[in-house]
Amino acid sequence: MNDDLTVPELQRRLAEFAAARNWQPFHTPKNLASALSVEAGELLEIFQWLTPEQAATVMTDPDTAHRVRDEVADVLAYLLQLCTVLEVDPLRALAEKIERNESRFPAA
Amino acid sequence: MNDDLTVPELQRRLAEFAAARNWQPFHTPKNLASALSVEAGELLEIFQWLTPEQAATVMTDPDTAHRVRDEVADVLAYLLQLCTVLEVDPLRALAEKIERNESRFPAA
Amino acid sequence: MNDDLTVPELQRRLAEFAAARNWQPFHTPKNLASALSVEAGELLEIFQWLTPEQAATVMTDPDTAHRVRDEVADVLAYLLQLCTVLEVDPLRALAEKIERNESRFPAA
Amino acid sequence: MNDDLTVPELQRRLAEFAAARNWQPFHTPKNLASALSVEAGELLEIFQWLTPEQAATVMTDPDTAHRVRDEVADVLAYLLQLCTVLEVDPLRALAEKIERNESRFPAA
Repeated sequence: MNDDLTVPELQRRLAEFAAARNWQPFHTPKNLASALSVEAGELLEIFQWLTPEQAATVMTDPDTAHRVRDEVADVLAYLLQLCTVLEVDPLRALAEKIERNESRFPAA
Repeated sequence: MNDDLTVPELQRRLAEFAAARNWQPFHTPKNLASALSVEAGELLEIFQWLTPEQAATVMTDPDTAHRVRDEVADVLAYLLQLCTVLEVDPLRALAEKIERNESRFPAA
Repeated sequence: MNDDLTVPELQRRLAEFAAARNWQPFHTPKNLASALSVEAGELLEIFQWLTPEQAATVMTDPDTAHRVRDEVADVLAYLLQLCTVLEVDPLRALAEKIERNESRFPAA
Repeated sequence: MNDDLTVPELQRRLAEFAAARNWQPFHTPKNLASALSVEAGELLEIFQWLTPEQAATVMTDPDTAHRVRDEVADVLAYLLQLCTVLEVDPLRALAEKIERNESRFPAA
């Protein structure tokens, strides 16, 4: 496995994966934003009937832990692909948001 | 601005931000998965009434571009915080998912 | 206020409302399904940071109660408009689903 | 099949179904709002990769038409159950919202 685990490298691999399957025509911003929302729902589905206590120990069951990692990957995959097509740098966007929130919600 | 834009560094800054405001009790897996889904909906909202053509040029309007980056940041923030509390490595989870998908959907 | 509160009558009023504003071109199945999902997220947002106990008493605060009714209305509005354009009878669809679930999950 | 297809009658049948399976403890407002959002995502999933033209003819395929009716039923089921536990009248909430929107968006 390629162990260069950075966001730009994963974006490159996702783009290559889609191109090899001729999936780019489907990867419009609107479709990717829909798919991101659908996958976020599938991640939430794992937790929907659990008490807060049950939800906190969800990773102790290997099958559920696998399902969580799988849905996290799907959410991240669509978020990164959306950022690629819109030319948004997701890590910079987050760093700037944290800075804005530091002004907006001053620490006590 | 701190320019170390890596996922672990952003996770550290998000954790520090939440700790300084005593927000950790709210950051249960179930609440973070809900917030992630809500923010994915807010990102989709930008595109919901647009034609595919309009959606493709959404970043040419500065206000909409700012809104897109802001919602991308919110989705990523909750995804990374969920990964922190569940001890999931998001980039590794995605790399493993891409490998599984390469077997599942062989390129033509 | 027109007090004929039935699903077909509300569907008729929603269609009339959209037609009077020339909004029908936006009301494609895909856009309405997106809007439904976005509004379901806005309804969930009300509950996302609440404990189960806090969530149970959400209607005792008049402002929150108004917000809940407002978001319930939005979800139902998009669901009914989607059913109109797809020619799905929502109450019949639900009755049939309950019957299928009665076979699928026999009561103890 | 019981052909009394009204919202209050379907709410009664949903409550009876849940009670017969001892599912009421799971049916907190927060869980039901999560489930509603998850099901809205499953409905959106049907449309996510379709062009507007393909989405418009989705009911001509019997399997997809069945899936649409099934997901519409799930969304409506959780919306009605949420309304039951919160004591919200969904049809009245929608009628009142339409009236507010008539003032907010005057027809041309």
